[in-house]
Amino acid sequence: MSSNLTKLRKHALQIFKAGLRAVDPVAAINQYVTVSNSVLSIGKQQFDLKDYDRILVVGAGKAVAPMAKAMEEHLGNRIAAGVIVTKDEHGLPLKKIRVCEASHPVPDARGVAGTESILALLETAAERDLIICLISGGGSALLIAPVEEISLADKQDTTKLLLACGATIHEFNTVRKHLSRAKGGRLAQKAYPATVTSLILSDVVGDDLDVIASGPTVPDSSTFHDAEQILKGYGAWDQLAANVRKHLKKGSAGQIADTPKPGDAAFEKCSQVLVGTNLQALQAAGQKAQKLGYHPLILSSKVEGEAREVATFYAAIAKEILSSRNPMQPPVCVLAGGETTVTISGEGRGGRNQEFALAAAMAIDGAKNVVVLSVGTDGTDGPTDAAGAMADGATLARARQKNMDPKDFLRRNDSYRFFQKLDDLVMTGPTRTNVMDIYMLLIGSV
Amino acid sequence: MSSNLTKLRKHALQIFKAGLRAVDPVAAINQYVTVSNSVLSIGKQQFDLKDYDRILVVGAGKAVAPMAKAMEEHLGNRIAAGVIVTKDEHGLPLKKIRVCEASHPVPDARGVAGTESILALLETAAERDLIICLISGGGSALLIAPVEEISLADKQDTTKLLLACGATIHEFNTVRKHLSRAKGGRLAQKAYPATVTSLILSDVVGDDLDVIASGPTVPDSSTFHDAEQILKGYGAWDQLAANVRKHLKKGSAGQIADTPKPGDAAFEKCSQVLVGTNLQALQAAGQKAQKLGYHPLILSSKVEGEAREVATFYAAIAKEILSSRNPMQPPVCVLAGGETTVTISGEGRGGRNQEFALAAAMAIDGAKNVVVLSVGTDGTDGPTDAAGAMADGATLARARQKNMDPKDFLRRNDSYRFFQKLDDLVMTGPTRTNVMDIYMLLIGSV
Repeated sequence: MSSNLTKLRKHALQIFKAGLRAVDPVAAINQYVTVSNSVLSIGKQQFDLKDYDRILVVGAGKAVAPMAKAMEEHLGNRIAAGVIVTKDEHGLPLKKIRVCEASHPVPDARGVAGTESILALLETAAERDLIICLISGGGSALLIAPVEEISLADKQDTTKLLLACGATIHEFNTVRKHLSRAKGGRLAQKAYPATVTSLILSDVVGDDLDVIASGPTVPDSSTFHDAEQILKGYGAWDQLAANVRKHLKKGSAGQIADTPKPGDAAFEKCSQVLVGTNLQALQAAGQKAQKLGYHPLILSSKVEGEAREVATFYAAIAKEILSSRNPMQPPVCVLAGGETTVTISGEGRGGRNQEFALAAAMAIDGAKNVVVLSVGTDGTDGPTDAAGAMADGATLARARQKNMDPKDFLRRNDSYRFFQKLDDLVMTGPTRTNVMDIYMLLIGSV
Repeated sequence: MSSNLTKLRKHALQIFKAGLRAVDPVAAINQYVTVSNSVLSIGKQQFDLKDYDRILVVGAGKAVAPMAKAMEEHLGNRIAAGVIVTKDEHGLPLKKIRVCEASHPVPDARGVAGTESILALLETAAERDLIICLISGGGSALLIAPVEEISLADKQDTTKLLLACGATIHEFNTVRKHLSRAKGGRLAQKAYPATVTSLILSDVVGDDLDVIASGPTVPDSSTFHDAEQILKGYGAWDQLAANVRKHLKKGSAGQIADTPKPGDAAFEKCSQVLVGTNLQALQAAGQKAQKLGYHPLILSSKVEGEAREVATFYAAIAKEILSSRNPMQPPVCVLAGGETTVTISGEGRGGRNQEFALAAAMAIDGAKNVVVLSVGTDGTDGPTDAAGAMADGATLARARQKNMDPKDFLRRNDSYRFFQKLDDLVMTGPTRTNVMDIYMLLIGSV
């Protein structure tokens, strides 16, 4: 490998890691939270702790244990009590906050029990209490409290039914918010009349607060009627469990109060701070790139679509930079982020980031001085132990030397084995954070 | 419609038309060609006409009639003779150059006859002749001269077979260059020892000279053996006509001279100038955008991929600009170009540009101050009379008012009817040029 390429590849990893550091759960909290002279500052908000009788900490998500630990370090014994629900093996020993571990992504009874503890604690909240709510990716499955008439199994069957219909995430949330005692602003409602401030690490494209963990502390503009219409629109209504249909019917008929809407009193003392987002990771990566001598260009933190198609577009930008120096003169670092999807047709092993890197490798074959990196910030890409992969203009030449046909690997969705054989997997181990994926194009001086 | 949006939409069309004007065949020729004091300048090349006994003009493609007319205006009676082959109804009355019309995209006997006339004329070319070769999109089907052993029907069957295999454009060209007396540098070989200069309007992503019209005047690095391997690799070898197999076999065995390779004497006096490319259109569009007060950002002229996926990525850039002002501060005009594809699953009516605009409309629903335009520079998008379509953040709201479900139109590949009902088709009529498509994102001050 040429020394230029070796340097580019090293820089690509350094830039990615700088992005990752910015959205580490502890770093994310510490970037926004300070306590000084009995005043708790969270971003631009200030809470004079003398105004509050108790501080309670609740939360759900894969990253909430380190977030809660960071809050304990800031607030120590000022925290009166707390409960968080996190994924198995994602807990940490905490002093004041009880940590419940539960199953993810398929919820289980331990998740329900943990969420009941949160609801019970919030039931005690009074006007002079401050509730700190920690939310991160995975919160939807971990903060799980079906309405009383409905069992966890019924709720899960409803979700599976929607999945089979190809419902959008918005449609999913509309339905599940209307089957829950925690989602869709219900948590804020439960905490009323206390003050509630949510610290959120976003794993959702667009960072919509009502989507992340199904928006437990923000207003819900959807209705029982919407939920019913969605299920009927997909022809799924008649396949629902009878008690689910009955609950939604009662809601539509106004016999159950709908989720709290914008303007509801429950949100008068509610605030939210996004402490970690994909854009923050891209900006930190861009700053590192600049330090290393590359002009950073942040294209978008809101990328969605089929992984191999997005990779092709990304490669088209690389080729334009190399041939006409549009949109920028190298050395340049083009950054984007979000979450792509893979339509699986083969039986290989891989993930959306590794497939992105494979498609990009094919599109930039032969190009000099270009590296493409696609990595998931949670450290796990698909059902593999890799976080993603790295490709360059010589990747295909190296594959050909090993008699590997990239088209064949792509057709079989076998990106993991492709990059494993080339030793080009990016392995980070579990990072305990998740702000989706980072896509990087690094082009050296030409 | 708000006055801001009306202005943005007007500007989007003005910017597109500025791009189009730059690649009009006549404008493209005139931008590069001048004659002064008996010196013909084509870009940086100069030809002292006193050094040449004859100027011959040949060419093939959908845009070569206006290109040839422009050359006649520059050179008048200095042109000794000429023959061009263009698509039916794409001819123009010329003075010195004979115009042959033929079928496109499926070649016919008139195309073969026209190409024979070109080859016969070049057969007479001598050392002190200057051959001006005009090439534009469509040249592959119009410059059609099967080798003697093979009929036009045999050659077409071979092409259909490759199409059914899903062969890449590179593989296609490797095979057809080895069944032709004009493609893959054979035209330059025929003109030898004359001087040959080609003026090329590119309709190919990446503007590769050996791909445009199958590279009649440039070296071909592929071999008879490669052609044979490609057909065998797809399991198509045994389905070929016996005389096609025999020809390729003889070539592989060295009994027929291969296409001329880089370094061949045939190219010693050969030169090429790209007089019109997608990038040139984007740059002219960018200049117009700047005049209208928008910061231009040229992302790539090399875009490929599924139309709706590319549109989603494009929309992600729009959303980032609106929410974080990355990569640029509005007002901004993001330009890209190339040629997307549509995987047809429905029975609707549309084209790749209209489908791009429909998918973009869905992705930017509700966004303020954004217009997306996707238009083919040839004026014809798919089997429709539209060149493309325009969408904005209010497009879906207007569709809903008419009880139109955009998801349904997209599923049925029915983008033409969608935009027809909203009066948002872009109609240019046939433009007589083709540098593929232009994708524009126009965002006003926010």
